[in-house]
Amino acid sequence: MKKEIILLKKYQKDIVLLNYLENLLDWDTETYMPKDGARSRSEQNAFISELIYKNLTSNNLFNLLQHLKNSKIKGIDKLLVERLYRKVERKRKIPEKLVRELSKTKILATMHWREAKKENNFKKFEPYLKKIVEIKKQESSLIGLKGHPYNSLLDEFEEGMTTEKLKSLFSKLKNKLIILHRKIEESKLYKNDLNNVYNIKLDSEKLKKFCKDVSNRIGLKEENSRTDISPHPFSQIIGLNDVRITTNYNHGGLSPFTSVLHESGHGIYDLNLPKKYLYTVLYDAPSYGAHESQSKFWEDMVGKSRPFWIYYFPKFNKEFKLNMNFKDLYRYANQATKNPIRIDSDEIAYCLHIILRFELETGLIDGSIKVKDLPNIWNKKMREYLNIKPKNDSEGVLQDIHWSHASIGYFPSYAIGVIYSSQLYRKMLMDKKNIELNVEKGDFKGVTNWLKKNFHEYGNTLTAEEIMKKACKEGLNPDIFIKYLNKKYSEIYEL
Amino acid sequence: MKKEIILLKKYQKDIVLLNYLENLLDWDTETYMPKDGARSRSEQNAFISELIYKNLTSNNLFNLLQHLKNSKIKGIDKLLVERLYRKVERKRKIPEKLVRELSKTKILATMHWREAKKENNFKKFEPYLKKIVEIKKQESSLIGLKGHPYNSLLDEFEEGMTTEKLKSLFSKLKNKLIILHRKIEESKLYKNDLNNVYNIKLDSEKLKKFCKDVSNRIGLKEENSRTDISPHPFSQIIGLNDVRITTNYNHGGLSPFTSVLHESGHGIYDLNLPKKYLYTVLYDAPSYGAHESQSKFWEDMVGKSRPFWIYYFPKFNKEFKLNMNFKDLYRYANQATKNPIRIDSDEIAYCLHIILRFELETGLIDGSIKVKDLPNIWNKKMREYLNIKPKNDSEGVLQDIHWSHASIGYFPSYAIGVIYSSQLYRKMLMDKKNIELNVEKGDFKGVTNWLKKNFHEYGNTLTAEEIMKKACKEGLNPDIFIKYLNKKYSEIYEL
Repeated sequence: MKKEIILLKKYQKDIVLLNYLENLLDWDTETYMPKDGARSRSEQNAFISELIYKNLTSNNLFNLLQHLKNSKIKGIDKLLVERLYRKVERKRKIPEKLVRELSKTKILATMHWREAKKENNFKKFEPYLKKIVEIKKQESSLIGLKGHPYNSLLDEFEEGMTTEKLKSLFSKLKNKLIILHRKIEESKLYKNDLNNVYNIKLDSEKLKKFCKDVSNRIGLKEENSRTDISPHPFSQIIGLNDVRITTNYNHGGLSPFTSVLHESGHGIYDLNLPKKYLYTVLYDAPSYGAHESQSKFWEDMVGKSRPFWIYYFPKFNKEFKLNMNFKDLYRYANQATKNPIRIDSDEIAYCLHIILRFELETGLIDGSIKVKDLPNIWNKKMREYLNIKPKNDSEGVLQDIHWSHASIGYFPSYAIGVIYSSQLYRKMLMDKKNIELNVEKGDFKGVTNWLKKNFHEYGNTLTAEEIMKKACKEGLNPDIFIKYLNKKYSEIYEL
Repeated sequence: MKKEIILLKKYQKDIVLLNYLENLLDWDTETYMPKDGARSRSEQNAFISELIYKNLTSNNLFNLLQHLKNSKIKGIDKLLVERLYRKVERKRKIPEKLVRELSKTKILATMHWREAKKENNFKKFEPYLKKIVEIKKQESSLIGLKGHPYNSLLDEFEEGMTTEKLKSLFSKLKNKLIILHRKIEESKLYKNDLNNVYNIKLDSEKLKKFCKDVSNRIGLKEENSRTDISPHPFSQIIGLNDVRITTNYNHGGLSPFTSVLHESGHGIYDLNLPKKYLYTVLYDAPSYGAHESQSKFWEDMVGKSRPFWIYYFPKFNKEFKLNMNFKDLYRYANQATKNPIRIDSDEIAYCLHIILRFELETGLIDGSIKVKDLPNIWNKKMREYLNIKPKNDSEGVLQDIHWSHASIGYFPSYAIGVIYSSQLYRKMLMDKKNIELNVEKGDFKGVTNWLKKNFHEYGNTLTAEEIMKKACKEGLNPDIFIKYLNKKYSEIYEL
């Protein structure tokens, strides 16, 4: 069996190396590529993804996996075979013709989405989104998981999660979040803030230093990472000990800093993956929600916490001459703004944004919602959940790039990640009583180590739910998230 | 036949795309990669070069090429087949085992070369260089070209060039260069300069602006190129309309500026290659000498010329407060320093450096020189050609990285490029009487256009010698180079 395992690892390594090359291409496209290189770059991207697809779906690999699956391997080898088989089997269910069709449609859809968003004209995007939904429906029936047809799409991002589970979970969560928002809206402080808008302008050169500082404290060092500027912040793993994050200083307020916290959370997860599984499917996060739990942990649980701002408040106040008291800055960092834009939302609105998208996506896939009706339904739900009305479709239904990328089934991972992060934070506080005292002093080493030991080091040897059960003694539990929000916002807005 | 040509182009495109990916990896390694990413990067490099080797030597491609070669294709298709066949045939003569052995040896050799250079200890490098020479000898006999065994190595870089031709050409050139140097040494100005060393320190932020300016005037724009910083300056093509050059501001004096001129010369050549041949072997330079002729054209012919400095002199003088007169700055830019380091040499010494390496390499390959004797022979020749004695082996035989990279046969291309560049410049002046008046005004458009029309636009449809015959009515002719140097240096040093 040894020879076959060696061969399997060789196949695996090739695929992982190709993935890293693809990541480098993406990183370069967003950071340093000269503008006119774009046409050539899209050919390079198409070439690499085709190569990855071919490697992943090759008969050689599949036959080897089937052979090994039915053999007497055990331990990590067995796990490797199982995890990889799952991935390969899924990919092989979708014929190359459909993959090509989707990939062409995505390029057109993204192009038209950009124009539609710019011109605030949903009609321009509609036919391409319709086509994408059709292909995704086909994909769903080819994958053919039980239950709601959305399950087959969800499964790509969140193994084992079902539409049924999420529907019940989200509907409970939704009501509680709406109630909390309403309470905040009625508070004196909230009303005061409305007339007293903080429009904090932070000098970007100075802010850059804070970004570097916080990222460093989380564990990203000059030797193993870098931070560049790109239109939209992201994080990429380029190889062992090489992660790249980006931020953007055009956005005002704290947002470049918040982005660096978020992306550093992704980055430190990748840096801490178990090195012994390098170049295998096990050297990865088990799900997108798992990855998001780490970015949200640093962005929200730590980065919007009182101890965190106890450390940074005097430094910000001094460096930027803010002339604010702690209470105001802390509330500013947690402002319940009910923003129509998902990525600018507070912690309460964020999940409502996700739930809205989940409801639309499931409707699109089961046929109960038509693409042409999306703008109306979007705006109706916005009023219902956030009590706001988007100015136009550009800040409504057209705001996200995901649908033009055919990433239907991805959004729930954001909410799952957020909920996981609140569970992990609570458990960390239980395990390490004094950890927040260190955070107040700018020492995050204990936090990073706790995450490493309880989350990062599993890599993809367990599912996200299994890791959560090991770390927190239970799987996804939105009650903890609700409790966390209620407590935090009651204090901040003196409810 | 059409179907086969389409298939051939597909194969070609894959290889070119892989080459561009390899270039991006190299660019990233030298510019932005975090230090600890190096191990992972070397795996990515090995993976890509293996993929390129496999694609280039595959039976599918070779059989297709043979089939097409014997068929009735013509025009560009015929050319494409011939040029690619040549490349593939060469690659296929070297068995994969030897390629792997060489590639392992190169890694070790480079590692030990670095240490040897740092510690000034040739012995540390000796066994690895010996191994490389052995492999290169094997390679030579596998390639099996007629005449001197070095011909088979030379041919990889300079199609059609022979050791026999170069020996006679270089020996003539060598004598004339030595004579010119001696004359300069006896001149009053040269002796004066020795007691009056210019140690110009240029503020790097200000110099950066000049670098950007000159590169822009040559034709590299923000949309199609970028300039970054790396330990050693280089130029890379990443794709259509995407070239990247680098420089280094740690070197003193004019050298960062000179490097940018040099690399911009490579860059504008790549940008001006005939776009209709993109993703084929024809979208390339025909030889390394051809590419070098373009970098040297801008670095030396233009960048060390009187008209060029008429434009830049007042700007440099003002910006850096040099307080020099034109004559002194112009002589400084052309100083006959007789540097022991090749890359810091003046135009006369540069070719002597190359000839020395050529003589050593041919001796190593035909067995008349032993690796262990290299330091002695190096120093002896140095005294003979440049009348200097390297302080130690680090600034002598260990100075270049080429041998540790197994690039034996490459050095002559530098001299060939230099000679070509002098021929091209002379012909340009004959074609465009007033072109230097524009250069004096900082307008290089006429120069770039002349090069584009007479050199760049041929791509790899002709050999370098053929392009030269079209552009200058004759092939490689060192007499023109000698005349150029004699005239220039007689004026500068008032001989």
